[in-house]
Amino acid sequence: MPVQLDSYLEGSWQSGEGSARPLINPATEQEVASIRSVTSSLAGAVRWGRELGGANLRKLSFAERGALLKTMAKVLHEAREQLIEVAVQNGGNTRKDAKFDIDGGIAVLAHYAYLAKGLGEQPWVVEDEAMEVFRSSKIRAEHVLVPRQGVAIHINAFNFPAWGMLGKAAVSLLAGMPVISKPATSTAWLAHRIFALLLEAQCFPEASFQLLMGSAGDLLDQVGPQDVIAFTGSQGVGTTIKTHARVIATGARVNLEADSLNAVVIGPDVESGTELFDLVIRDLITEMTQKAGQKCTATRRVLVPEALLEDVRERLFAGLTEIAGRTGEPSNKDVRMGPLTSQDQLDDARAGIASLSQDAEIVHGDPQRSGGFVGVEPGTGYFLEPIVLQATAAKAMDPTAAFHQHEVFAPVTTLLPYDGELASAATIIGFGSGSLVTTVYSDDRGWLAGAVAEIGPYLGRLVVANEKFANASMSPGCVFPVANHGGPGRAGGGAELGGMHGLALYMQRVAIQGGASQLARLLGGK
Amino acid sequence: MPVQLDSYLEGSWQSGEGSARPLINPATEQEVASIRSVTSSLAGAVRWGRELGGANLRKLSFAERGALLKTMAKVLHEAREQLIEVAVQNGGNTRKDAKFDIDGGIAVLAHYAYLAKGLGEQPWVVEDEAMEVFRSSKIRAEHVLVPRQGVAIHINAFNFPAWGMLGKAAVSLLAGMPVISKPATSTAWLAHRIFALLLEAQCFPEASFQLLMGSAGDLLDQVGPQDVIAFTGSQGVGTTIKTHARVIATGARVNLEADSLNAVVIGPDVESGTELFDLVIRDLITEMTQKAGQKCTATRRVLVPEALLEDVRERLFAGLTEIAGRTGEPSNKDVRMGPLTSQDQLDDARAGIASLSQDAEIVHGDPQRSGGFVGVEPGTGYFLEPIVLQATAAKAMDPTAAFHQHEVFAPVTTLLPYDGELASAATIIGFGSGSLVTTVYSDDRGWLAGAVAEIGPYLGRLVVANEKFANASMSPGCVFPVANHGGPGRAGGGAELGGMHGLALYMQRVAIQGGASQLARLLGGK
Repeated sequence: MPVQLDSYLEGSWQSGEGSARPLINPATEQEVASIRSVTSSLAGAVRWGRELGGANLRKLSFAERGALLKTMAKVLHEAREQLIEVAVQNGGNTRKDAKFDIDGGIAVLAHYAYLAKGLGEQPWVVEDEAMEVFRSSKIRAEHVLVPRQGVAIHINAFNFPAWGMLGKAAVSLLAGMPVISKPATSTAWLAHRIFALLLEAQCFPEASFQLLMGSAGDLLDQVGPQDVIAFTGSQGVGTTIKTHARVIATGARVNLEADSLNAVVIGPDVESGTELFDLVIRDLITEMTQKAGQKCTATRRVLVPEALLEDVRERLFAGLTEIAGRTGEPSNKDVRMGPLTSQDQLDDARAGIASLSQDAEIVHGDPQRSGGFVGVEPGTGYFLEPIVLQATAAKAMDPTAAFHQHEVFAPVTTLLPYDGELASAATIIGFGSGSLVTTVYSDDRGWLAGAVAEIGPYLGRLVVANEKFANASMSPGCVFPVANHGGPGRAGGGAELGGMHGLALYMQRVAIQGGASQLARLLGGK
Repeated sequence: MPVQLDSYLEGSWQSGEGSARPLINPATEQEVASIRSVTSSLAGAVRWGRELGGANLRKLSFAERGALLKTMAKVLHEAREQLIEVAVQNGGNTRKDAKFDIDGGIAVLAHYAYLAKGLGEQPWVVEDEAMEVFRSSKIRAEHVLVPRQGVAIHINAFNFPAWGMLGKAAVSLLAGMPVISKPATSTAWLAHRIFALLLEAQCFPEASFQLLMGSAGDLLDQVGPQDVIAFTGSQGVGTTIKTHARVIATGARVNLEADSLNAVVIGPDVESGTELFDLVIRDLITEMTQKAGQKCTATRRVLVPEALLEDVRERLFAGLTEIAGRTGEPSNKDVRMGPLTSQDQLDDARAGIASLSQDAEIVHGDPQRSGGFVGVEPGTGYFLEPIVLQATAAKAMDPTAAFHQHEVFAPVTTLLPYDGELASAATIIGFGSGSLVTTVYSDDRGWLAGAVAEIGPYLGRLVVANEKFANASMSPGCVFPVANHGGPGRAGGGAELGGMHGLALYMQRVAIQGGASQLARLLGGK
């Protein structure tokens, strides 16, 4: 019997008035839960959060807010098995994929709980040292971050219902901003369960955390100049938010994380038979198939030196063939890859592959395969086996090629042979118009330094992998709370996480200008 | 004979094809120069800057780019007299106002030249220390800033043709981003003269600095994902930029500095007869009348404890009466305040005063005065004497009151009596929906600390002034390169200057993730 998932607004569970929308198990196509959107105005919820929630949070010190995050992490860690179960049923996640999402979210809570301990008792964060406003002036300026006196509206993507919600909420709550979190509907059960656990355990002050299920309703019509909107999802919705009349009129702060054509670059010095080469293959397989490729950080373009192409293809295809044979019902222990999240996602992925295949050739996998998935009735579920395309070296240098323009959100990647020159790699990566992450594999320190300067501008994060650290290296799709998450241009131009940097999204930088000894006494500081 | 002011694009002076637009001396209404807009596409100029200019700048180290800024400062300092003369003629500036603009611009060049020395030889700025990606991992993440590989488009306001252009250009060039600078047409002569001096002295690499006179033409249609648009001006034009289809589609980075209803708060402990009270009056007169109140940082709202109101009025009106008697032709030595910059500005100011007077009473000055200005034919020039309005304490608490909504860009301010409570002050300031700067005058350290937390979120800069530092304190309208300039909400949500913080606008933050010893060798760093 499917559960109905209510919103939690203004201190009570609200069942909503819209028509019931089913949430589906994407492996069995069975309804697992349903949601009714709230169709009445959200003005009250926004005000309740902004006023009562904000005041309640700002009464606490950073350390006290950090202690709340630590409690949240503990509560969720203890409920881990039931959360995994929900993720498997509603998200089509394998247990391993479910842990990646849930443990990732808990890790962000724990990291920001840890950072809180260093933030002192004053209600601001001191960013730098006091500087003379001009030479030998007694007057100094020093920057602090203070919590914005608005509400943080978090609009999350379907692929990480746990990490998406918790990653944003941890930073916002520590910064002192109350949260209204809106999960993506198709996978919202996990977010709902997490929220209910945290509410029941009284992990946050009254009004500081609200949950909106289903449609966003008139939420954006309520924003004010101190509010923050943090969105993860498609460029289309991102544009709607950025250009919304009230958002523009009030100057509410917007952070977007949108489409990203992440690349990896295999350096010209990489040879097969090395640990570094093994890492390349291992990372590629992970980044194609983890969460069935439905990660904003998954690898969509693979820059391969022409001489290494055959070796890469052979090893990659072997690994993917094994996974294709172990794709299926994600609760089955033999299964390594589950389905896409919805019929829409599957349709979009197939259309995307058709688009990519205008400019590249399908060299591995069958996009139309509909049977032989483990533990699944033929024709049931939204399964797609891993698909590899390959472009010519000439086509890779064409900025209009589909693989530089179109993100296929599925286990799909395109091999791009290149001449092994850093300048070519930077150009090709730049054709993606801004991405979240790239890994560069090389033992050539000069090449890696060049990559920081020449490829870095197109990214939010650059992973450098060499032979020495090959067995410790983490694949690019794993986002750690200490590292910046976001990217320029097409990737939305946003920045989240990154340890202390992440707090800035929810705080206002203010230069405090005053007498030297006055500032020192007033701000404490570094 | 008026000079024609050409654009400098793609390596040559271009006279433009549009009809000639006159630049006017606002005291005499005589034409001093003219501009023809470039009506052909600016695609070539953008590409020339982005590709050649960017490559030329990035060939240089930070220290080398800093040395260029130092040379620029020197060239302009030596040409100071001719620059002042242009500002007086075209801007209606008194010599003192002209110096404020020109010396301010030179100070930003000098400050960023100084900062450059600390930035090392590598092509990035290391922002923090390497952090373990999880406990006891060998893999670390560390953040660097790298120059964006685009062009910086600077669209400046009419009120600071020197500081506006140089303040933006100094930071951008040091960061490694080439510049296309578009001055506001009405006062563009000074910006043009500055650019011509820097070009003649070969202060910047080929293609790294271009000047666009007149209309922006199709400039925004050319932007790409690595470009930055930094705009200072009205909220209306800011909205046009933010919502421009190409800006949205590419995710080009936009920084806005728009309207700002700056306030000052006189603390409840301030008594007349103190140095602090004298500072209040001195700052108020400066912030109302410097540049005839045409400063984005000028004081528009004055929060006065009710008990102090009579004293403030008496001293303020006396000072303003003297300035009203010495308002006139700015090259005249007796003159302390010049005209507004244009007929449009004068019309707007008078309409704005009419709007404010719906919710407050004019208590000093005559908005319609048209004669008796020093050294001016009656009826000539765009003069406005200082105008003070006063609201009731009740009206001050009305968020819809015109003085909380409408910036009058002229020597105009409104006195707002309040009860001396910090919470009231924060509420009133918040009604401005985000401002650039506020000064709080008080010797009560608890009150000042409260102001940082409660008023800070609405500001980009907070000046704290007490008795001890009263004689050294700088009035809020003076923007120093070490301090953040920008503000949330209505003020545009942007951030410029602020010493090292300012570089981030023109650079991309990238988390570099790799092995511990590998990162240390690769990045150098702190």
